[in-house]
Amino acid sequence: MKTDRTTLRRLPERGSHDPDTVEGILDEALICHLGLVDAEGRPFVIPTIHARIGDVLYLHGSPASRALRAGSGVDACVVATIVDGLVLARSAFHHSMNYRSVVVYGRAEKVEDAGEKGAALEAIVEHVLAGRSAGTRAPNEKEVKGTLVLRLTLAEASAKVRAGGPLDDEEDMGLPVWAGHVPLRMVAGDPVPAADLVAGAPPWPDYELGRGEKSP
Amino acid sequence: MKTDRTTLRRLPERGSHDPDTVEGILDEALICHLGLVDAEGRPFVIPTIHARIGDVLYLHGSPASRALRAGSGVDACVVATIVDGLVLARSAFHHSMNYRSVVVYGRAEKVEDAGEKGAALEAIVEHVLAGRSAGTRAPNEKEVKGTLVLRLTLAEASAKVRAGGPLDDEEDMGLPVWAGHVPLRMVAGDPVPAADLVAGAPPWPDYELGRGEKSP
Repeated sequence: MKTDRTTLRRLPERGSHDPDTVEGILDEALICHLGLVDAEGRPFVIPTIHARIGDVLYLHGSPASRALRAGSGVDACVVATIVDGLVLARSAFHHSMNYRSVVVYGRAEKVEDAGEKGAALEAIVEHVLAGRSAGTRAPNEKEVKGTLVLRLTLAEASAKVRAGGPLDDEEDMGLPVWAGHVPLRMVAGDPVPAADLVAGAPPWPDYELGRGEKSP
Repeated sequence: MKTDRTTLRRLPERGSHDPDTVEGILDEALICHLGLVDAEGRPFVIPTIHARIGDVLYLHGSPASRALRAGSGVDACVVATIVDGLVLARSAFHHSMNYRSVVVYGRAEKVEDAGEKGAALEAIVEHVLAGRSAGTRAPNEKEVKGTLVLRLTLAEASAKVRAGGPLDDEEDMGLPVWAGHVPLRMVAGDPVPAADLVAGAPPWPDYELGRGEKSP
């Protein structure tokens, strides 16, 4: 949704409020950064893991616990950023990165309902690795109670995307400098079994990893 | 430096104030997230690029321009996070990620001195790709003036690192579930030359890419 805060002031041509774009980036990003304001009015930011269910973003909020006053929720800003490549221009000034990012503004509220909380925790594990929840030991009541989960709607969310090569100034186009872009991607290495894995534990289940990359 | 804000309250055994650890993570991370507070007292976070010179962190601050009041600087929190892997436990609850992150608190100030600003801009290009500055067209006066660069000391910086396999509860150790961790790393694909690269431009200079990964 386009609101005053989500109106893209800088490079608006890179921006989007399209829900598919926003949701796709949130689903692909492994982590996000949660910004809050502390009791003294100063900003603080924590990296955390998240998952999306419909138009609600759930965050594993334990690192934020000292900022959350009971019940009422707090103003939050969540950013998920995926780096897609380096952009090398002819001029130093036009160097850049290719990326996809989403910014979500809203009130972050503690999830109190046990059913919603359980679903959110499962979604967070599934977000890290689809298919992983089944087979693992499910959270017990103490674990669910002891974990802080935050919810934030995607009502004030926007995406920004930069792709492709450099945009140099006309007068620099003839310079004898290599220019272009270099794609970057996250890949998974060989799974490392826990040293104390019991005999009889099943082999690595060959999950889909790295957002499209298959484990070797 | 250990101050009230950088005292690690959650999982302090993962924390460090060691300058080498802090600086190594900042140097390796391709981007960071800058948290500020807007005029209404609400948090906002922007992804941006950075570079370190000694114990000063420089940020490409243009996206932050609307938050910066003239001259005086603003309270800021910068986080750089590198995701190193997925941690798959026997219980859903103990799933985690391996990561290295740095949090820097401080006053972000506009860099006004032309010499310092030029050095910071060069460091930011070099941070993206070491060796890249030489050969590109250097910033002219208009570009230097038009680019907002922020400085922040590393006086209040701390690192957090998680590595290795899962830490399951004793009573879950015998469960027939694959457990372990999966390393993740960023790799560079083939460089894509700009479509309008002039004849006579030098070939791809074979920079070191992806923090240790060589381009193919």
